[in-house]
Amino acid sequence: MATTNPARGTRDFLPADVRKRNYVIGIIKDVYESYGFEPLETPAFENLETLTGKYGEEGGQLMFKILKRGEKLAEVTKLRSPEVGEETLELRNIETSQLSDLALRYDLTVPLARVVANNRNELPKFFKRYQIQPVWRADRPAKGRYREFYQCDVDAVGSDSLVVEAELISAVATILKRLGFDDFIIRLNHRELLRGMLAASGIAPEQEGDALVALDKLDKIGPDGVTKEFDDRGITGAANLLELLQSVASVETASAMTTLSDFVGDHASAQNGLNDLGRILKYSSQLSAISHQLVVDVSLARGLSYYTGTIMEINVPDLAGSLGGGGRYDGLIGMFGKEQIPACGFSLGLERILVVMEERGMFPPEIADSTPADVMITIWSEETVNESLRLADELRSQGLRVTVYPEPDKLGKQMKYADSIGVPFVCVLGETEICENNVTLKNMRTGEQQTCNRNKVREIIAV
Amino acid sequence: MATTNPARGTRDFLPADVRKRNYVIGIIKDVYESYGFEPLETPAFENLETLTGKYGEEGGQLMFKILKRGEKLAEVTKLRSPEVGEETLELRNIETSQLSDLALRYDLTVPLARVVANNRNELPKFFKRYQIQPVWRADRPAKGRYREFYQCDVDAVGSDSLVVEAELISAVATILKRLGFDDFIIRLNHRELLRGMLAASGIAPEQEGDALVALDKLDKIGPDGVTKEFDDRGITGAANLLELLQSVASVETASAMTTLSDFVGDHASAQNGLNDLGRILKYSSQLSAISHQLVVDVSLARGLSYYTGTIMEINVPDLAGSLGGGGRYDGLIGMFGKEQIPACGFSLGLERILVVMEERGMFPPEIADSTPADVMITIWSEETVNESLRLADELRSQGLRVTVYPEPDKLGKQMKYADSIGVPFVCVLGETEICENNVTLKNMRTGEQQTCNRNKVREIIAV
Repeated sequence: MATTNPARGTRDFLPADVRKRNYVIGIIKDVYESYGFEPLETPAFENLETLTGKYGEEGGQLMFKILKRGEKLAEVTKLRSPEVGEETLELRNIETSQLSDLALRYDLTVPLARVVANNRNELPKFFKRYQIQPVWRADRPAKGRYREFYQCDVDAVGSDSLVVEAELISAVATILKRLGFDDFIIRLNHRELLRGMLAASGIAPEQEGDALVALDKLDKIGPDGVTKEFDDRGITGAANLLELLQSVASVETASAMTTLSDFVGDHASAQNGLNDLGRILKYSSQLSAISHQLVVDVSLARGLSYYTGTIMEINVPDLAGSLGGGGRYDGLIGMFGKEQIPACGFSLGLERILVVMEERGMFPPEIADSTPADVMITIWSEETVNESLRLADELRSQGLRVTVYPEPDKLGKQMKYADSIGVPFVCVLGETEICENNVTLKNMRTGEQQTCNRNKVREIIAV
Repeated sequence: MATTNPARGTRDFLPADVRKRNYVIGIIKDVYESYGFEPLETPAFENLETLTGKYGEEGGQLMFKILKRGEKLAEVTKLRSPEVGEETLELRNIETSQLSDLALRYDLTVPLARVVANNRNELPKFFKRYQIQPVWRADRPAKGRYREFYQCDVDAVGSDSLVVEAELISAVATILKRLGFDDFIIRLNHRELLRGMLAASGIAPEQEGDALVALDKLDKIGPDGVTKEFDDRGITGAANLLELLQSVASVETASAMTTLSDFVGDHASAQNGLNDLGRILKYSSQLSAISHQLVVDVSLARGLSYYTGTIMEINVPDLAGSLGGGGRYDGLIGMFGKEQIPACGFSLGLERILVVMEERGMFPPEIADSTPADVMITIWSEETVNESLRLADELRSQGLRVTVYPEPDKLGKQMKYADSIGVPFVCVLGETEICENNVTLKNMRTGEQQTCNRNKVREIIAV
């Protein structure tokens, strides 16, 4: 018999899980909408060519690709001639690109870029959208790492103003506060400043990528670890750079900015990056959701290759990874159209947020202890089914969530079931009650029981 | 340059589309929950073996299959030895099952059956769940037929009582009424009755499947068309059957039931089916959402092979297909576990509902004419950015949805943009206004403009 488990790295969400997920998603949507962001949804799969070459080498390997169908698949996999020879040998080495034409969405940013390029005339000049959908990556499953997971993205397209960054940071901080987080840190850096710092340390431009990868691990492996990584990759100039990082880590932002400015000297784009960071700090200084949590961290690098300016990440102390991150990508949309359109966005990881909230017990009681219905109605006998269904109909029209025990059964069994699903009240509708237009209402938490007119049920349950 | 269109048969949903979809989904969820159904979500893809053999031959062909990855793919597609010979020939004929290990969800019923078998001990004895998620079928795209579409399923697992059918019908009818439909018909039939009718017509058991397929087309191709299909497939006994269908179509239900009972004679399971239908009609007779719309239609067959008892379908006059359908499948869950568990469900097709609502103009104004924000705040100059952001912060904390123009710009351009996105109010925050703690508030619909204290903005907009 086939396994009944979900596919490797994926999960079924039973009702209690879905309610928690929807609670968090509801707050995220609410806040994004209060900032004027609009909902967008894109298909689960994209043409393979849309995604190819956008995520670097690893991304290409981790993408779930969909098999071609029918004739097109047969062309590749089926023997077309019975002769054995050169042609056969060639056909046996089949490339993935011959077998697949579609791939599952790997993130929500590349689909957004495609949508913007495809709908330039229908979309407003500045397009502010949010998108909360699953993405799929064929990563090795591990604790907290799944092959299907939700991203909650918010992006503003069409402006290179740093007001965009300030608003994004404010929105994301507001969400975390509304969810009950008070110890998150928003780290801020800039790709141009990073490049300038590497250049000023004497690191060659062609080693930039490798150096950023090593640098990004600073908080995990420490300065010695980074030095070792630099050595292993043959990068010189690390000592210099690590000294700088340590010297700015412990001082006030203003003084750190001066140190950084001195370090990068007249490297124009690095100064530009510093300028941008200064302005974001200024814009954010008086916003209610952001206070001490916003810091410049020049060791922040972020993995994705498409970032061009500001990069951002949010962390909490009790989680190894980040709750979310983002940045500016002024070059991505241009890959899909004639026009180069600036854009900046932030992505919150739903699964990470849920893990921390679960561990800290942050769900409000109405979510943590939710029940499938406000009341269950019993069925006395085959002859009284219609009476029970009618009562359910009445109570629903009064706004109650009502479940009906599905068949005539012993009252004890019906009560036991009500208890097992956690409904707070049970309406017993026996022959006597029906004759007298009454119900017997049992409070399952206190055990109290009272007989009342059926018109009173709503009122008693609501108390 | 790559195409910027979504993949064939799929769609991007821009904000106005998403709002309409969410409006309908919101009502569906609300009503399902008022009946005590709980939310379930399952992964987008399943192990291939979970789905294989559940949907009949067509289903197998229309499934989107996911390519194996890494080593496991290379094992199948790469040449392992340079010799040319028997082995090579064999390897060239690669089967789909060798290339794929996962497939996209084809419906929501089979995943439910798997989840029930997998979580029997955690789930209540009667499990009532709803699930609103996309499914994927590699069908030829056509008007109203997509490769990615949402199903809104509701199922009750664990009881063979017909109370389940009555509650499902009531829930679905309530949804359609809440959405504004008043001309839908719910058609009801029973697989056992169908089999009995075919047997009584002298149709051989092995021709049952073919006969049902032909019969299901009666409303599309008429009695002559069905007769021709029967002839083409070498099925005899059609005249008999079609006469019966015509004789019961035009009479009252009670009289039709008598005619049907006479026709099937002492065929036990057919009489059982008739009995079931009678009981569903009785249970439904006094429910507020169901009145004249519930009819027995013995020509209804439904495509899926897993139905065992009641089958149901909902139609409206101006749509060729159905708005949804369902039935009882008491054998499906047993395919995944040791235990045979009865179940019955209904699936509403979101896309079909949306098409009809769009054509009929059924969306309420707040959905049809929704705007991305209640108010837009202008930015006067680089120096006043902070003031604009602070005002946005204030108004959001008062519950307004606020968008900020992202950069200092000519006031005319800012107004033009506000107009293009349809915000009803614009807050102009110029130097004078800032000095006086005022804003100039423009009503974009009437053109009226007034200067007021910033504390009054909320009040004026809410009026």
